[in-house]
Amino acid sequence: METSLRNHLKGKIPQIVEGSVVSELELETSIGIVSSVITTRSVTDMGLSVGQEVCAVIKATEVGIERC
Amino acid sequence: METSLRNHLKGKIPQIVEGSVVSELELETSIGIVSSVITTRSVTDMGLSVGQEVCAVIKATEVGIERC
Amino acid sequence: METSLRNHLKGKIPQIVEGSVVSELELETSIGIVSSVITTRSVTDMGLSVGQEVCAVIKATEVGIERC
Amino acid sequence: METSLRNHLKGKIPQIVEGSVVSELELETSIGIVSSVITTRSVTDMGLSVGQEVCAVIKATEVGIERC
Amino acid sequence: METSLRNHLKGKIPQIVEGSVVSELELETSIGIVSSVITTRSVTDMGLSVGQEVCAVIKATEVGIERC
Amino acid sequence: METSLRNHLKGKIPQIVEGSVVSELELETSIGIVSSVITTRSVTDMGLSVGQEVCAVIKATEVGIERC
Repeated sequence: METSLRNHLKGKIPQIVEGSVVSELELETSIGIVSSVITTRSVTDMGLSVGQEVCAVIKATEVGIERC
Repeated sequence: METSLRNHLKGKIPQIVEGSVVSELELETSIGIVSSVITTRSVTDMGLSVGQEVCAVIKATEVGIERC
Repeated sequence: METSLRNHLKGKIPQIVEGSVVSELELETSIGIVSSVITTRSVTDMGLSVGQEVCAVIKATEVGIERC
Repeated sequence: METSLRNHLKGKIPQIVEGSVVSELELETSIGIVSSVITTRSVTDMGLSVGQEVCAVIKATEVGIERC
Repeated sequence: METSLRNHLKGKIPQIVEGSVVSELELETSIGIVSSVITTRSVTDMGLSVGQEVCAVIKATEVGIERC
Repeated sequence: METSLRNHLKGKIPQIVEGSVVSELELETSIGIVSSVITTRSVTDMGLSVGQEVCAVIKATEVGIERC
């Protein structure tokens, strides 16, 4: 394994809401929409755009558990 | 909507590794294993155990994006 | 208990600063102002507005300790 | 202001659960118990013990909002 | 020690991108550029501006490890 | 760029404190010690050990700013 970040969720980008500093990026995954807020600089540097397939990445310590 | 936390991933608990302070809890979801670290106190207070169906909950600001 | 998120602080919203992607929301609680940054989408989806009583929710792993 | 970390909650330590790597520390504040997970190394380096008055410190981006 | 936050990286601010709610602040440190997103309110309250020397502060639980 | 995670700090591992669930890993970098808490499962899966050179990875939204 190359990373300690345990959670990687693959999905397609249906929408990017770009702000001046941060952007909201949604991923359409097999388990539903996953929502992410990253810097707009990263959106530009990575060349992210609607329709691309990318992975959401989440550190295990950021994941809570709820009854649902 | 009742919460600002945008990401909820439903899954079944295949395994809990309990430590004295924090525990690692895996969820078997339709998109694969999701890994979570929560306090052992929460595992006890929620009565979490293997086989239960619960939700992983993640704030959008904690979600990064990577090529994969 | 229904959630592993251990910290819930009740307060009234005195002010919302809305940005295009994220918004800053303050809560007037019995212990003082609590400040939160959430997606503007959540502000809309939850129908949050000034004067409402809601809870700030914080995972224990996000809480540091300082002399004060 | 000396820090960008917007939330500081003062309280007394009623209990420390020490693990080998991380410890759970509770603060008895005027708004109720606040729960924190920090490294056991920090507990030692700061000389934290039951009865001391310290502050919980939380970045605004880590604070979600829920109906309650 | 006065804080449980274990990581402090000193640097000079070469650039601030200010948004209405959050701002991106870069620090030029001896190990390279460190990038931070804080509330614009903190930028104002702290009087941060280009050329100042400040510290980035990071909780150890927020730090992942990767091969590089 | 392959990732939205903006901060990567290269260093050598001088010490790993292994717990049953999480481990504390220090990196000796050109800017000083960087401290990280990851799952012990990641330490094992990545084959991390003292003396190896790896990168600390940190999302910009997790980085606060302080006078120092």
